[in-house]
Amino acid sequence: MTSYRFAVNVTPKPGILDPQGRAVEGSLGHLGIEGVSAVRVGRRVELTVDASDRVAARAVVERLAAELLSNPLIEAYDIELLGEASSTVGAGTGTVGEA
Amino acid sequence: MTSYRFAVNVTPKPGILDPQGRAVEGSLGHLGIEGVSAVRVGRRVELTVDASDRVAARAVVERLAAELLSNPLIEAYDIELLGEASSTVGAGTGTVGEA
Repeated sequence: MTSYRFAVNVTPKPGILDPQGRAVEGSLGHLGIEGVSAVRVGRRVELTVDASDRVAARAVVERLAAELLSNPLIEAYDIELLGEASSTVGAGTGTVGEA
Repeated sequence: MTSYRFAVNVTPKPGILDPQGRAVEGSLGHLGIEGVSAVRVGRRVELTVDASDRVAARAVVERLAAELLSNPLIEAYDIELLGEASSTVGAGTGTVGEA
C-alpha cells in the first residue's frame, strides 16, 4: 500500500453567483487595495488515500469529489496530487494488493 | 499593466480542529469509500490582479491573504500563480507604469 496526498479544488462554475467573492471585492476598498477583480471563493479539501497504486487512489478521490465534495450543478472541481509515500510497515497485510 | 491570476489556498493549521474535515470523514462510510484519512477542509480563493509586474502583483495578494482571506491564528495560506496576460489594450494609460 502507498499513501497518496491529494487536494481537491472546488470552485463556483463560471456564471454562477458567488456571494463570498462579491463580499471580498466589497472589502478591498476598506483595505486600500486596488486592481483586484474576478474574485471567486471555493473550497480546498486535502486528504490522504491509501491504495495499491496511483490510478486506484485517484479513482477514489474522483468519486469523492463528484459525489460528496462538490455540487456538480454549480461547482467545478480539479484534483491535484500533492505527494506520495510508501507505508507497508504496520499495514498488517502488506503483501496483499501490492502494486 | 499585466493581469495576473492567482489562487490563495487557506487551510486549517496542523492541530487546529477541523469540523468540516471530520464531517467528510464521517460520510465516507455511507458512500462505501475506504482508505481515506486526514481530511482537511479549507478555502480556495482565485482572483485577478492588475499590476506593473509579477512582484508587485504578488505583494498585493500576500497582503490580501494575510489581512482578509485567512485568520493567521488558526489558518495557513499559500499562494499559487495560475497565469498572466498582458492587457495594455483598453487600459487607457497603457504607457504608464509598464514593466
